[in-house]
Amino acid sequence: MKAAFYTGDKTFELRQIDPPRPGPGEVCIRVAYNGICGTDMHAYHGAMDQRIGFNRILGHEMSGTVNALGADVRNFSIGQPVTVRPLRSCGQCPACKRGLSHICHNLKFLGLDTDGALQEFWCVEEDLVHPLPAGMPLDHAALTEPVAVACHDVRMGRVKAGEDVLVIGGGPIGILIGMVCQHVGAKVTVSEVNELRLAMAQRLGFRTVNPKTTDLAGAIMAETGGKGADVVFEVSGTRAGASVMTDVAASRGRIVMVAIHTTKPEVDLFRFFWRELELIGVRVYEKQDFDRAIELLAGGAIEVKAIITDVSRLDDVGNAFASLDGSATAMKSLIQIGA
Amino acid sequence: MKAAFYTGDKTFELRQIDPPRPGPGEVCIRVAYNGICGTDMHAYHGAMDQRIGFNRILGHEMSGTVNALGADVRNFSIGQPVTVRPLRSCGQCPACKRGLSHICHNLKFLGLDTDGALQEFWCVEEDLVHPLPAGMPLDHAALTEPVAVACHDVRMGRVKAGEDVLVIGGGPIGILIGMVCQHVGAKVTVSEVNELRLAMAQRLGFRTVNPKTTDLAGAIMAETGGKGADVVFEVSGTRAGASVMTDVAASRGRIVMVAIHTTKPEVDLFRFFWRELELIGVRVYEKQDFDRAIELLAGGAIEVKAIITDVSRLDDVGNAFASLDGSATAMKSLIQIGA
Repeated sequence: MKAAFYTGDKTFELRQIDPPRPGPGEVCIRVAYNGICGTDMHAYHGAMDQRIGFNRILGHEMSGTVNALGADVRNFSIGQPVTVRPLRSCGQCPACKRGLSHICHNLKFLGLDTDGALQEFWCVEEDLVHPLPAGMPLDHAALTEPVAVACHDVRMGRVKAGEDVLVIGGGPIGILIGMVCQHVGAKVTVSEVNELRLAMAQRLGFRTVNPKTTDLAGAIMAETGGKGADVVFEVSGTRAGASVMTDVAASRGRIVMVAIHTTKPEVDLFRFFWRELELIGVRVYEKQDFDRAIELLAGGAIEVKAIITDVSRLDDVGNAFASLDGSATAMKSLIQIGA
Repeated sequence: MKAAFYTGDKTFELRQIDPPRPGPGEVCIRVAYNGICGTDMHAYHGAMDQRIGFNRILGHEMSGTVNALGADVRNFSIGQPVTVRPLRSCGQCPACKRGLSHICHNLKFLGLDTDGALQEFWCVEEDLVHPLPAGMPLDHAALTEPVAVACHDVRMGRVKAGEDVLVIGGGPIGILIGMVCQHVGAKVTVSEVNELRLAMAQRLGFRTVNPKTTDLAGAIMAETGGKGADVVFEVSGTRAGASVMTDVAASRGRIVMVAIHTTKPEVDLFRFFWRELELIGVRVYEKQDFDRAIELLAGGAIEVKAIITDVSRLDDVGNAFASLDGSATAMKSLIQIGA
């Protein structure tokens, strides 16, 4: 079978390898689609070489059908459509013992720390496999993982109908968070500096602000009668985002920290005190977020067509990464494998 | 009657003035005791001159007995022991409309923005007056306000029995937070750089760490089997505190921002993401926190003798402020007025 190996320096090698056989408790999945994630782009740029090495099959946003069952697998059947929650936890660390296995101190992320879904067949432990509803298009289902991120973030932010939400950063995760918030019944504004992304966000029905040309805090205060945003999602990972997040939040507003801030920005802790703000760190997703994401995708709550901006074949995986790299208009690129 | 006026530059003037008469809806209180707060020290140093002016009666941590009732006051009687929740809200702003009158955008703090309790008689709106249980010593009752701060902070931090709590900063508020946490059944460590305060915290039964001589994060991790503190109270207002608070917290740990950070420190937002930490800004107290503080004080849950380190007469108010200023051993100084 065919598999795409990341071999360092923005390069993939397509190789013919023996198909894997499912071990006990494992499900072998015929991969249909795999989405390219921001983390994959990070790996592509060499930023994760030390962690992933130069002989790694990437891919953790996927859909497929069950192809074979290992011993003791009871809950799946051949041909069943599935997706995978790509987190393997240790079960022993303080986080696992507190029921927080998704942020296990020894977490293995499938498709980064282990080989992933950019291959024709992929074997995964049964408890990480989620069944998909019959008839759900498998390209849509490949968005389950990023939608689960958004579901987790919105759940942790306790977003309620009628609340004013500001999403700082209009990339794929920011837009999905906005869509999930809209589904909950919140009023969503997206802040984004890229005009093409802003235009897309407008087409999707979001209020938009370009903080480079408009005073973001002033705009949000004006929109909300001086109250501010009930929930702010910081998805930009920028110092500007970390600075403005405290200015735009309502009294007791929740600021959800979605972005990865690789340096330590200055934060207005006085404002946390003064307005009794709350900062909520969020990472990946729990099982219930995956179930919810499947439900939203199957129910049509996510505008999939706006998210999937490109579909390539596995043979073209290198070009797919290259064209996604730095594209201002692309949201999510899928690699079609066995579909 | 006698009243102490702050007249600028660390100076008080004792003046004879006419006793105030309660207006409609007001209770006139014969002041028994008034505690000196960190904010009062701040005012004493001139840092709040622009806000409070040079003709201000300070004092907002008090106890007393009802001396006279204005028209329409129905719920109090002459001679009844009382304390005052010194927050006047506007009722109109976005915070008030959300039920957050204690962080009203136009909040008036009695004893700073209006005249306070460093006088023999003080008239206050009925709805800010809390009755005290019969027999509760009035010097103890003067601690209600700072204990209410601690009750608010511990409630907002959702501290539960058995949890590991770290209090960064062992001043009066830090120690009161520690006492309220102990009462809830939490295991409390106090981090403090002042050896005299550390010794006092030890006498009160707290585990203690001096972060200048011991690696605080290492000590907390060792104490908690690598888990970290479930709840961290940042009461130091220092950059070191803002830095270490994210290192010592458990996965999904809550960091309660009690301190006033007058500059914007660098904060490890990555750690918020990675460990799903929560930061909870807290300010003053709500009505229920005042009721709870009275309950704790009346029930003997607060070691009052460790907190009240000095009692002076109103005539000596200047000396009381001067000796509290920079004292390493003083916790709370009371001014005895009409008791």
